[in-house]
Amino acid sequence: MRNVFHAQLDALSGGIADLCDRTGSAMNDATCALLQADVHAAEEVIEWHHDITYLSGLLEGDALTILARQAPVAGDLRAVVSALKDLADVRRMGALATHIARIGRLRHPAKAVPDEVEAYVAEMGRIAVQIAGDAKSVVLSRDPERAAQLGVDDEAMDELHRQLFSRVLSPTWAHGTVTAVDVTLLSRYFERFADHAVDIANRVIYQATGARQRE
Amino acid sequence: MRNVFHAQLDALSGGIADLCDRTGSAMNDATCALLQADVHAAEEVIEWHHDITYLSGLLEGDALTILARQAPVAGDLRAVVSALKDLADVRRMGALATHIARIGRLRHPAKAVPDEVEAYVAEMGRIAVQIAGDAKSVVLSRDPERAAQLGVDDEAMDELHRQLFSRVLSPTWAHGTVTAVDVTLLSRYFERFADHAVDIANRVIYQATGARQRE
Repeated sequence: MRNVFHAQLDALSGGIADLCDRTGSAMNDATCALLQADVHAAEEVIEWHHDITYLSGLLEGDALTILARQAPVAGDLRAVVSALKDLADVRRMGALATHIARIGRLRHPAKAVPDEVEAYVAEMGRIAVQIAGDAKSVVLSRDPERAAQLGVDDEAMDELHRQLFSRVLSPTWAHGTVTAVDVTLLSRYFERFADHAVDIANRVIYQATGARQRE
Repeated sequence: MRNVFHAQLDALSGGIADLCDRTGSAMNDATCALLQADVHAAEEVIEWHHDITYLSGLLEGDALTILARQAPVAGDLRAVVSALKDLADVRRMGALATHIARIGRLRHPAKAVPDEVEAYVAEMGRIAVQIAGDAKSVVLSRDPERAAQLGVDDEAMDELHRQLFSRVLSPTWAHGTVTAVDVTLLSRYFERFADHAVDIANRVIYQATGARQRE
């Protein structure tokens, strides 16, 4: 019984890792679509999100089946409930990637992000993609030390978020209110994307060590 | 066994309803603190959020205990898993209320919201408080028709969100970039608060009818 349970839990983790991978790809494509004002790429990101939602729904069904058939307790039960929370996080990460793609699509054929702050946005996109890849590794390895690294990457994201805010709110901002609002929302979406990946990593730390991180 | 299970599930629903009530109060106080530039009220909202986080953690423990001891299946299992998702939503609703209070605190002693759009923000706050109260009623009554009403209120919130955006992005906006950014984020926080309440209501509809709403 215990072996069946762990095989099912491993399959569930594999599915969650795959979804982390897909949200990372979606974020990569969304950032490129945004920075290159590529409306077709933006629409593909939005379209692919249906796959993420659909697959996460299937995996949620698998998690419920494990709970119903195996009736796990203690750490095993927490592992399945953590998987359910992870699925909510990856769904949200996918949705945030589509929000970024939508802002790109909305301003097409113009570029939503002015040259002055393009490097910030590109770097936020790069960190977001990296952190999604790290979340995938951590879900598969269950390594709490590797999981703790996501918190470090998230600090870099938060720092970029603060710096970008300072630029937008500076008296020298010369790109008008519409662009300020776009950049503010974009920055928020990147930051929230990273937060959800960190929440996934923190559950790995909690399950391995019992130490709860901020949520 | 079944009676014990339902008594425990009712207690869990009662706790979630209480947290909906608390997030509604937090949102009411956050909106007042924001519109009146009342820094002490803003700090109370931020302080009270610890209670919401703490209580939701206790209720999550109760839900895990029910899963471990009662090993529910089918609809009973889905009810407990729904309760876990509801708890994630109320935690997030509480966090969004603190975000609104923080913007008020950040701009104190000035008002973050200019007179020109104060009526929009006040109305978004009013709808948010109402929708939290409706979520409470729906969690207690499990009434799918009443739950469907939250979607209607959420449309009113979305419409205000669009109208406020139009004002901020209009060429006649005369309150500068900082205020535009504040108002954009505030509008987003109110809208997301309502979305989470609707997610809670949609789970009641799904459990009662099997019909899944958008998430």
